[in-house]
Amino acid sequence: MEKVILSSKLSSFSKHWVPKIVGELNGQYVKVAKLQGEYVWHQHAQEDELFLVLDGAMELHLRDRVVQLRKGELFIVPRGVEHKPVAHKEVAVLLFEPATTRNTGNIENELTIEAGELEKI
Amino acid sequence: MEKVILSSKLSSFSKHWVPKIVGELNGQYVKVAKLQGEYVWHQHAQEDELFLVLDGAMELHLRDRVVQLRKGELFIVPRGVEHKPVAHKEVAVLLFEPATTRNTGNIENELTIEAGELEKI
Repeated sequence: MEKVILSSKLSSFSKHWVPKIVGELNGQYVKVAKLQGEYVWHQHAQEDELFLVLDGAMELHLRDRVVQLRKGELFIVPRGVEHKPVAHKEVAVLLFEPATTRNTGNIENELTIEAGELEKI
Repeated sequence: MEKVILSSKLSSFSKHWVPKIVGELNGQYVKVAKLQGEYVWHQHAQEDELFLVLDGAMELHLRDRVVQLRKGELFIVPRGVEHKPVAHKEVAVLLFEPATTRNTGNIENELTIEAGELEKI
């Protein structure tokens, strides 16, 4: 029951594509992450995923279009929808998603972190 | 599947203490609200509630302390914990909570809006 200062959480790490848990409620995690570069196409079969840009800008590539997201803009990727985050420069995001969500969804590769292995900061 | 520009949503209404639904995922609603003044003490028996300040500052009064929240800071009120939001000046917040959450929790008064009656914007 402590408040979370998002800027402090973000300044505590630098690695890209590694979400950090900053809160939990109703079986959902609140995470922050820094993204830069191009991620992998993936989808989450059972979980909707929210991206809220805290600083910078990013693209969410969907199979039929590209969604441009800037600071203060959010997008909910419905379960089962393939997506690929792309950030040409570093972007800081807040994620809301079920505690069970694996970062790379249906894909397993060097970026994969199992849900239970995410760090709480 | 459209992005949500939080500033646009916020500029579309002015009434205080009336949350508006801007997104839904995993049985949870994402809402925005403008608060000013002093709310009622209440609690949500089954639902944890997240407050994220988007603009301005507010206080979350708990029975044993007052949490000061500024822009970019969030607080999760666990289920069953009495709280009273207070905003000396207008504040804009993002709320994340189950779709079933009633705004005044266990209290029914003139501020109460049943979960099913909330407007989607």
